[in-house]
Amino acid sequence: MSVDFDVAVIGGGPGGYIAAIRAAQLGMKTVCIDDWKTDGKPAPGGTCTNVGCIPSKALLEASSHYELAKEGFAHFGVGIKGVELDVSRMQARRASVVRQNNDGIAFLFRKNKITFFNGTGSFAGCRDGEYRIDVTGDEPRQFTCTHVIVATGSKPRAWPGVPFDEKRVLSNTGVLAMEAVPESLAIIGAGVVGLEMGSVWRRLGAAVTLFEAQPALLAGADRQIAMEAQKQLTRQGLTIYTGATVRKVEPVDGGVAIEYDDAQGQVAKAVFDKLLVSIGRVPYTQGLGAENVGLKRDERGFVAVDGQCRTNLKNVWAIGDVVRGPMLAHKAEEEGVAVAERIAGKYGHVDYRAIPWVVYTHPEIAWVGRTEEELAEAGVIFRVGTFPFMANGRARTMGTTEGFVKILADAKTDEVLGVHMIGPMVSELIAEAVMAMTFKATSEDIARICHAHPTLSEAVREAALAVDGRALNM
Amino acid sequence: MSVDFDVAVIGGGPGGYIAAIRAAQLGMKTVCIDDWKTDGKPAPGGTCTNVGCIPSKALLEASSHYELAKEGFAHFGVGIKGVELDVSRMQARRASVVRQNNDGIAFLFRKNKITFFNGTGSFAGCRDGEYRIDVTGDEPRQFTCTHVIVATGSKPRAWPGVPFDEKRVLSNTGVLAMEAVPESLAIIGAGVVGLEMGSVWRRLGAAVTLFEAQPALLAGADRQIAMEAQKQLTRQGLTIYTGATVRKVEPVDGGVAIEYDDAQGQVAKAVFDKLLVSIGRVPYTQGLGAENVGLKRDERGFVAVDGQCRTNLKNVWAIGDVVRGPMLAHKAEEEGVAVAERIAGKYGHVDYRAIPWVVYTHPEIAWVGRTEEELAEAGVIFRVGTFPFMANGRARTMGTTEGFVKILADAKTDEVLGVHMIGPMVSELIAEAVMAMTFKATSEDIARICHAHPTLSEAVREAALAVDGRALNM
Repeated sequence: MSVDFDVAVIGGGPGGYIAAIRAAQLGMKTVCIDDWKTDGKPAPGGTCTNVGCIPSKALLEASSHYELAKEGFAHFGVGIKGVELDVSRMQARRASVVRQNNDGIAFLFRKNKITFFNGTGSFAGCRDGEYRIDVTGDEPRQFTCTHVIVATGSKPRAWPGVPFDEKRVLSNTGVLAMEAVPESLAIIGAGVVGLEMGSVWRRLGAAVTLFEAQPALLAGADRQIAMEAQKQLTRQGLTIYTGATVRKVEPVDGGVAIEYDDAQGQVAKAVFDKLLVSIGRVPYTQGLGAENVGLKRDERGFVAVDGQCRTNLKNVWAIGDVVRGPMLAHKAEEEGVAVAERIAGKYGHVDYRAIPWVVYTHPEIAWVGRTEEELAEAGVIFRVGTFPFMANGRARTMGTTEGFVKILADAKTDEVLGVHMIGPMVSELIAEAVMAMTFKATSEDIARICHAHPTLSEAVREAALAVDGRALNM
Repeated sequence: MSVDFDVAVIGGGPGGYIAAIRAAQLGMKTVCIDDWKTDGKPAPGGTCTNVGCIPSKALLEASSHYELAKEGFAHFGVGIKGVELDVSRMQARRASVVRQNNDGIAFLFRKNKITFFNGTGSFAGCRDGEYRIDVTGDEPRQFTCTHVIVATGSKPRAWPGVPFDEKRVLSNTGVLAMEAVPESLAIIGAGVVGLEMGSVWRRLGAAVTLFEAQPALLAGADRQIAMEAQKQLTRQGLTIYTGATVRKVEPVDGGVAIEYDDAQGQVAKAVFDKLLVSIGRVPYTQGLGAENVGLKRDERGFVAVDGQCRTNLKNVWAIGDVVRGPMLAHKAEEEGVAVAERIAGKYGHVDYRAIPWVVYTHPEIAWVGRTEEELAEAGVIFRVGTFPFMANGRARTMGTTEGFVKILADAKTDEVLGVHMIGPMVSELIAEAVMAMTFKATSEDIARICHAHPTLSEAVREAALAVDGRALNM
C-alpha cells in the first residue's frame, strides 16, 4: 500500500501554505490544493494575500501618502503645489503587490518540492487509512494521502437577503477593487475591515458612514482604546453611528438604501452610492466533501477540532479560519506549523493567550491578551498603566502624537495580562508585548528593559512604569 | 547639620533629568543644574534634546517627506505637481519640536518638585560628608547636598587644530542649524551622526561626501550590516570613501579644503562649502570643579566609575556620556534610574549586554548584543539566521524592501547573542530583540512566538527560524 502523498493541505491561504512548507521541511511528501485564480492564473495565498491583509495594506499605504501629500507636509517645510489622485495606478500597484506575493508562494512551493494543484480539493473517500482527494478545476485529478489538513478558510457574511454583487453591495473583495472613488460609501460593521476600508476611501475623498450595532466599535478591543479610535477616526471625517441597528438594506437605482435605528431609537433612512457589508466572516467548507468522509462540523459550520486541531477523523486536521478561534492570518500560520509538527511526531505549540490583533487605521491599533473589561468580568484584580504618545520624543519628531499605550498587570503577581495600544506604528510595537506575555513578564520586567531613545517603543516601557505609578516622562 | 538637598544632579540631559525624576519619585529632595540656553531661555535636555537625537530626527523626518514627495509617490498613484523646499520652515519646526521637549522637561521638574537651576554646577568643596555646589550663571548661588550625580555629558571632538566655527566647520550643532542647503558638504567620520546628517542634507539637495578612516562605516556595527548600509546609502547618492585618511583640513575662502589619502593610498584634494566633523565625542567636565574635591578622571578624561557608577568620592556618582560605555541617551537614562535607586538603598539594575543601537538613516539600522566579528574573535561558536525584507509582506505593501534581519545564536545553547537589522522601522523592531536578549531567549523561543501578519516584525521571527535552517517564507 503506497499513498501518493504523506500530507495533503486543502487551501493555500496563510494557514495552508505555511502548513505545507513546514510539512515538507519535515520530510513529508506534501501537496497543497488551492482554487484561487486571478486573471486566469493560479493565485495562492487565500483571502489574506488576494483580498485581505496584503491588498488592504497596499491601499492603506497609498491612501495615507495621498492624504499626507494633500495636507500634511507644509509644516515640515515641504510645499506641495498640487496633488492628483490616480486610482487606476493605485489599484494597479495593489494588484502587482498581490501578484508578487502570489508568485512568492508559488516559488516557495517549488523550492520546498511541494506539489501544487490549482483547483478545488475535496474528500472523495477513505479506505484503510488512506484518504482519496478529488481535485476539480482545469485539470481534474484524484490522489491518495495519509494525512489531510483542512485550511479552507472563511468567506464574508452577507446581509440577509442581499447577496454581494460587488458593484453596489460590496464585500472585502469589491471594496478593495473600486476603480473610482464613490461619492458616498456606507459600511455596516465597524470592525477591522470596516475601519480600514472606511479609512482608505475617506482619505481618497469618499463620504464614509459606518453603522455599528454594538455600543462601541471594534468589538473585542479594550473599551478605552475603542473610544479613542472612535474619537480619532471621527475627527478625521468618518461618520460613525454606534448602537445603530440597520433594519433594511435595499439596492436601488444608482445606490443602496439603508434604513436604520440610530442610537436614540429614531428610524432614519439614507441612500449611498456603495455599501460595504463587513459584519464578520463564516467558515468556508463548500465543495470540501466533508459529508463523504463524515467530517464533523459544529452548529456554526466550523470544522470541529480539539485544542490541537484534530478533527473527529483520524489523521485529518483543520486549521485557521475554518476552525474556532480568531480569524487571523498569523493564528492560522501558528496552527499550520504546529499541525505539521504534530503529524511528524513532534510537539507543536500554539500559545493562544498571546495572539496579537492589529488594525491598520491611522492611528494604528494593536493589542494582545485580555482587555480591562474581560479582566473585570473574570474578577481579576489588576493595575493599569497608560502612557500617551504626546509625551514621547519620537512621536513628536514625527508629528504623530495621537494615542497611548496601556498595560494591564495582575495586582498581586504583576504579570502582564494585556497590552493595548493606539498610536503610530503600534502594529510593530505589539511584537515586544507579545514576547513579554509569552515569557510571562511582569510590568516591572518591561520597565527595567532598556528601550532605545528616541523610539516609539519607549512608550511601552513608560506604560509599564506607569503600572507602578512611576512613569518618568509623564 | 542639615543639607539643602539630598541629591544634586549636575547636568540636565537624558541621564541627568531622568536621574533627578527618579530620585524625587523616591522621596529625595532633589536639585538639577543645567546651563543650556536657547534664545536666552533655559533649555534642559542636554545634547540629546537640543542638538542630538531629537532635532536630528525632526530633520530626518522632514527631509524624508521631501524626498518622498519629490520622487516616491507616483507609483502609489499619487501625482505631485511640484515640490518646494522651505528650509526656514523646516528649521522652525525642528526648533519648535526641541522647545516642546525642553518645556516638557521643565514641566516634569515642577511636577516632581525638583528644584532646577539654569547655570553651571560645580563642586566648591566637601566637609563632613556635605558637598558644596556652586552655580554660576544669571543667578549665582551655592547650596549643600549629600549626594551628587555628575551627568555633564560629552562634547564633539574637533579636528586637531581646526576649531568648530559652526559656519564652515560644523559640529552636530552647526549641521543641524543650516538655514540653506549647501552645494557641497564634506563629512569626516561615517558614524551615526555622519550618516544621519549626510542623509538629511543629501535628501535636501547637497552633494555629500563622507570620509571614513576605517575600512567600513559604522565602527561597532556588524560588518555585513555596515556593508549593506554602504551599498544602500551609496545608491541614494552619498559619496562614501572608506579607508580614507584625511591628512589636512583647512578653511579657505568660501569653504573648507580637505586633503586625503584615498583607499588606494593616492593623495587627493577637494574643496567643499561646508565640513561636518563627526569623529566622536569626548567627555565634558569643564567647569565641574572636579579638582576642588579630588574627583578622579581617567586618562581619556572620563569620570572614573565602577560598574555601578560610583566615583572615587563617597556619595558622588557619575552617569552617561561622561563615564565609560556607549554614548547613548538611553544608556545614560538607565544609569540615571539605577543610581537614583542605589542612593535610595534599592537595587539599581543596568543590563549592559542589552543596550540597543539605532541609526535613523533610510533604511534604518539597529542592533543589540554582539556582532559576528566580536563572536568570532571571542571564539564563540554560533549559528546565523538572516531574512530579507524583500520576502516580507508588509515591506512589500510599503514599497520599502531593502535590508534584512540577522540573528546570531550560540551553536550549543541556542541563546541569542546578537540581533542586527537594516531595513524599514528597525528602530522599533529592535525593542523585541532587546527583550528577547534580556530574557536570555533562544532563537527557538523567538521562532515559536506568534508575530502579527502582515508586520515587519515577522522578519525577526523568520530570521530566528533561519538560524535553524527553517525559515518559512524564504
